[in-house]
Amino acid sequence: MKALAVDLGGTHAACALIEDRAILHAKTLAADGAGGLAPLLPRLAGALRSLLHEADTPASACAGLAFSFCGLADHAGGRVASTNAKYDDAPRLHLKAWCETSLGLRFEIENDARMALLGEWYAGAGQGMEDIVMITLGTGVGGAAMIQRRLLRGKHAQAGCLGGHLPVLYNGRRCTCGAIGCVEAEASGWSLPELCRAASGFASSLLAREKQITFERLFHHASAGDAAAMEVRDRCLKIWGAATVGLIHAYDPEMVIIGGGVMKSAAAILPFLQDYVARHAWTPWGKVSLQGAQLGNQAALLGAIPLLQGQAD
Amino acid sequence: MKALAVDLGGTHAACALIEDRAILHAKTLAADGAGGLAPLLPRLAGALRSLLHEADTPASACAGLAFSFCGLADHAGGRVASTNAKYDDAPRLHLKAWCETSLGLRFEIENDARMALLGEWYAGAGQGMEDIVMITLGTGVGGAAMIQRRLLRGKHAQAGCLGGHLPVLYNGRRCTCGAIGCVEAEASGWSLPELCRAASGFASSLLAREKQITFERLFHHASAGDAAAMEVRDRCLKIWGAATVGLIHAYDPEMVIIGGGVMKSAAAILPFLQDYVARHAWTPWGKVSLQGAQLGNQAALLGAIPLLQGQAD
Repeated sequence: MKALAVDLGGTHAACALIEDRAILHAKTLAADGAGGLAPLLPRLAGALRSLLHEADTPASACAGLAFSFCGLADHAGGRVASTNAKYDDAPRLHLKAWCETSLGLRFEIENDARMALLGEWYAGAGQGMEDIVMITLGTGVGGAAMIQRRLLRGKHAQAGCLGGHLPVLYNGRRCTCGAIGCVEAEASGWSLPELCRAASGFASSLLAREKQITFERLFHHASAGDAAAMEVRDRCLKIWGAATVGLIHAYDPEMVIIGGGVMKSAAAILPFLQDYVARHAWTPWGKVSLQGAQLGNQAALLGAIPLLQGQAD
Repeated sequence: MKALAVDLGGTHAACALIEDRAILHAKTLAADGAGGLAPLLPRLAGALRSLLHEADTPASACAGLAFSFCGLADHAGGRVASTNAKYDDAPRLHLKAWCETSLGLRFEIENDARMALLGEWYAGAGQGMEDIVMITLGTGVGGAAMIQRRLLRGKHAQAGCLGGHLPVLYNGRRCTCGAIGCVEAEASGWSLPELCRAASGFASSLLAREKQITFERLFHHASAGDAAAMEVRDRCLKIWGAATVGLIHAYDPEMVIIGGGVMKSAAAILPFLQDYVARHAWTPWGKVSLQGAQLGNQAALLGAIPLLQGQAD
């Protein structure tokens, strides 16, 4: 089965022609979340049509367009449910009509973390499983859950998606979401610089010389023995450990897949989390399998076929 | 529709003859979780038969026996999935066969927090809702979730049940479940005495004179101005607030129902949690309704009819 797919992030939109578990052709457009989605739509349609042209494939050979969105999506309604400072005009747009008019195709939309889970389930680390939690560690912390082969969505499209907003430090930092001590507020790309500045010995740390503090630099300095970097690294690992245990307790998965940009440092993260979960998760039935994501930033695109086929509805 | 129901706790077993949303006859037996379930079964069957006799109702007039269990239950398999120091022989017992032989009735089993949610949904605070989280504050902290009118169960019968075991203090106390900083470890009946002893000024507090520190005594002394009691009370309220926000973020409900023995002090708890959730939960679609449970310890019994009818499967 063939399909078109879009994975829309805050700064770029990946467009692809998919056949089952393979990306046949792909093209990435620069995008601007602050500028809204409406001005991007004609460029997306153009890019998708040129992919079809390159592949000498008529649109009618595709089962539809699967649209992965960096915000909450109302899958049943075929629209964006709510945004958070990216593409804020999107909830008002009739994307189904746009897709039918400009491509002649059926339109299905889903949140990007759920799409990444679908992709990893269909073509990556989660093949053969039916109960999966996905965690993406990046600028934010995303999540999604599949329970007994069904993608967890919930009444307002929020269920399973807010793994980064489970409070793991009830008296901690205020999060951008309004809650206190969320995983994101305590251990994510956006909160990392503040976390580092609060570490003891920051002023004399190598971290203080970094123009931009990233997890890659944090792990680098920590492995070189920088005390402040080690302190922040160890704290972040424990925060992610607590979050993983919380998600296992919440959703009862047999597998947790960890993805996101921070997993470039997987060697410093995955063994810690595997050990943490083995020691602290309450799973009398056996042991949860903890795996790194396999598909990188192609995961959400490769969720296209199972989304369009409703394999996990 | 009529049904028999059992609600089995660690120290007693409530038995009832139910008709729709009413308890027609009821009888409570003393029980002993440490002694196992096998010796209790003949007494349960006797009590249920005598309820039928008193009501002049043949067993055949009942749709079945709904069994609410204080541990993890495998609903589909009709058996206890796992226990935690109460009725540890239960997973090995063939309860379906026992029920058919001794009562001639169909047998359905479910975890007690899920049964309480079913009861409140069918006959109490949750009527008309389809997306509900239930939290029970007591010796432990229990939970259950209904998502889009389906009871959340999960592959190993754990999903939704472990709301008391979401870590809300990643560097906190070790919980009986093996995790760190769980809601139960930081604010429940069993952890309360230890929490109080750790409070500043405990030695000179009225709490130190209590033979047994309960939440009822804690709230009493706190409202009288005892400093240590106020400190522990305020900390517990914040822990429960963080837990409620975490459960809202996890399951996307329109309503949270708070029950359990601690809610005898509801006037000191519910307004705080309502305000906390209104300020801190991330629900762009609107406001979650926070309600006290209405059915008290009858909730699990009144879940009998929806359980036997599979209304929330």
